[in-house]
Amino acid sequence: MRAELYHPDREEISLDKVLHALSDPIRRDIARVMHLEGSRVCGQLDYPIAKSTLSHHLKVLRESGVMHTEIRGTARVVTLRRDDIESLFPGLLDAVRVTAPERRTAAV
Amino acid sequence: MRAELYHPDREEISLDKVLHALSDPIRRDIARVMHLEGSRVCGQLDYPIAKSTLSHHLKVLRESGVMHTEIRGTARVVTLRRDDIESLFPGLLDAVRVTAPERRTAAV
Repeated sequence: MRAELYHPDREEISLDKVLHALSDPIRRDIARVMHLEGSRVCGQLDYPIAKSTLSHHLKVLRESGVMHTEIRGTARVVTLRRDDIESLFPGLLDAVRVTAPERRTAAV
Repeated sequence: MRAELYHPDREEISLDKVLHALSDPIRRDIARVMHLEGSRVCGQLDYPIAKSTLSHHLKVLRESGVMHTEIRGTARVVTLRRDDIESLFPGLLDAVRVTAPERRTAAV
């Protein structure tokens, strides 16, 4: 039997961990891709980083409550927990440019 | 001659560093105190942590661009860089409860 992946319940989600998860540009980009495209198969995520590093990023996003991971056969499908984060921390996903419309500024 | 304290210019402030700075509850509380009370003398900040830990928190807040530190004689006066952060990342300080009205929820 495969161990269940850990996901915090909504009331367990902490702002500390969410902000830590979103303080990395690749993790923010993954969150933005999930927002723009809906659920995403992990294997379709393409970044110029080691697979183990990507796995770490996905774990941080999942354990902080930013993202849900579902195992479907051999695939892992990830989804942004937009409703949970938005209800706990209104405006945060917009402010960190995950759900905001595309915008270019000097600071990234 | 005393070395000048480092402060990033507005255009150098990065979202990564700001989110990292705000991912700690004591650093968020210091930011909130500065918001509520205006400038603050460092010696008036009272937390049950080592002085060196507090100094570290203040350095992270300053170097990320969240806070300005001014040396006045033997005192250091800290101020939230609200205009800079708000213009770069609109809504962020509210979303992380630094400038938002007091609100109690299950998650902190």
